[in-house]
Amino acid sequence: MRSVYLNGAFVAENEASISIFDRGFMFADGIYEVTAVLQGKLVDFDLHTARLARSLREMSLELPLDAAQLLAIHRELIERNQLTEGLVYMQVTRGVEDRNFFYPPAGSPLTVVLYTQAKTVLDSPLAKRGMNIIGLPDLRWGRSDIKTTQLLYACMAKEQARAQGADDAWLVKDGWVTEGTSNNAFIITRDGAVVTRELSRALLPGTTRAALIELVKEHDLRFEERAYTLEEAANAAEAFITSSTSFIYPVVSIDGQLVADGKPGKLTQRLRQLYIDHALAVLV
Amino acid sequence: MRSVYLNGAFVAENEASISIFDRGFMFADGIYEVTAVLQGKLVDFDLHTARLARSLREMSLELPLDAAQLLAIHRELIERNQLTEGLVYMQVTRGVEDRNFFYPPAGSPLTVVLYTQAKTVLDSPLAKRGMNIIGLPDLRWGRSDIKTTQLLYACMAKEQARAQGADDAWLVKDGWVTEGTSNNAFIITRDGAVVTRELSRALLPGTTRAALIELVKEHDLRFEERAYTLEEAANAAEAFITSSTSFIYPVVSIDGQLVADGKPGKLTQRLRQLYIDHALAVLV
Repeated sequence: MRSVYLNGAFVAENEASISIFDRGFMFADGIYEVTAVLQGKLVDFDLHTARLARSLREMSLELPLDAAQLLAIHRELIERNQLTEGLVYMQVTRGVEDRNFFYPPAGSPLTVVLYTQAKTVLDSPLAKRGMNIIGLPDLRWGRSDIKTTQLLYACMAKEQARAQGADDAWLVKDGWVTEGTSNNAFIITRDGAVVTRELSRALLPGTTRAALIELVKEHDLRFEERAYTLEEAANAAEAFITSSTSFIYPVVSIDGQLVADGKPGKLTQRLRQLYIDHALAVLV
Repeated sequence: MRSVYLNGAFVAENEASISIFDRGFMFADGIYEVTAVLQGKLVDFDLHTARLARSLREMSLELPLDAAQLLAIHRELIERNQLTEGLVYMQVTRGVEDRNFFYPPAGSPLTVVLYTQAKTVLDSPLAKRGMNIIGLPDLRWGRSDIKTTQLLYACMAKEQARAQGADDAWLVKDGWVTEGTSNNAFIITRDGAVVTRELSRALLPGTTRAALIELVKEHDLRFEERAYTLEEAANAAEAFITSSTSFIYPVVSIDGQLVADGKPGKLTQRLRQLYIDHALAVLV
């Protein structure tokens, strides 16, 4: 049985419970981070604490834990659960109060939850097989750049993909791909440019996205940050997704149309290896 | 201390807790209803059970409780908490499972929570004073017609209204008012037409909205279901909101501009009384 960190204590997972008056439960008034674990250590932890700080700021939440304290909690959880490969999930909500849309007084205690999940990250089957994705309208709210727990549409979209025999969905707003349901969406053009949507309030500033873009630039590969359509993606040379716990997965079909020959792209595979090398080099 | 209904049992409110793995907490994968209570009885309960059924259907949730069982739970909760005036809140989520965007297998148990809140409904100060509201962009997701717990933006918008010295906000999408943060928005034109936005995926099909429209028609008042701008609203003869626990509150200013003379409108006050008479007549 896993240990869960809950508001300062480590408890057994079947005893990790929160009040029904938690604002995370009533209002989705909370944010989260998911950090990959390899060899019992954290991947790109600095990027996650930086994004957490941004989410807290955008939500007017004041978390009384600094990066060093968060790292210590992550490490203790990994140790207690003897996790070698997988992830640490962290969620912060605006705490517990009888139901009222208005925020509780400043300084009211937040709810802080962390737990681990074991997952095959390096040797993931989807990394080899590639993903079949469908396009769906992006019906999410106008601040998808904040990593909130308002994830219902991501669930609905993944479920719709599954119902159609696919693995996941890419979301399309005003004719342009924003991102995947829980990942950023990339294509590689026939002339070798790595392309992903520019950041805005319409998509999440992915940590893997950010790290990969640095690697692309370091290796003198062409990079373009711009909007593209699902049609351009389906007709691209390669396509892939990035996320904290998938790293990079090839996309081999879009709405039933094979991407190139329908096999994971060569540059995509190279980028995955570059990211894995990076991840192993920055473990903390 | 209140009793809370939680998955078949009545428990003390400080013991009413759910797993941190509840999908309501992790994904906002849940819906809710709020029913007003007057004289210890429920207002427009049929409209709430009908809307609950619609929300369940849209979310592919199967609740193993019928309307009669839900009524019995509501009544027992009112009795246990000796509630005479206020509300019963009910929330249903897709249950507890280790974190995974995809839905749990069909037939997995849902989480069902109900509790009461005491509130002055009939003699509410805001019904006499009227509300000052501001306009804000409607940043919510594309299925605001489903009464989900994705309420973060409603919280943010109310908080922003409070920061500006106002009581609440009306949301504007593509130039047109959709609704209030947690209520439907109405105006009365200078030639006496009661106007509210037509139903669509952009706004909640309010129970009070529905009941009031019937009353407006029964009393041979003019009614128009159409889009209007915040500017038309600010220059209207009267404005008001409807919600299950506010019934009808006058709106006396919009973005700092007084609506007419800045006092609760006469027809608005008459409609509030008509709705109260209706509510008292349909108590169960």
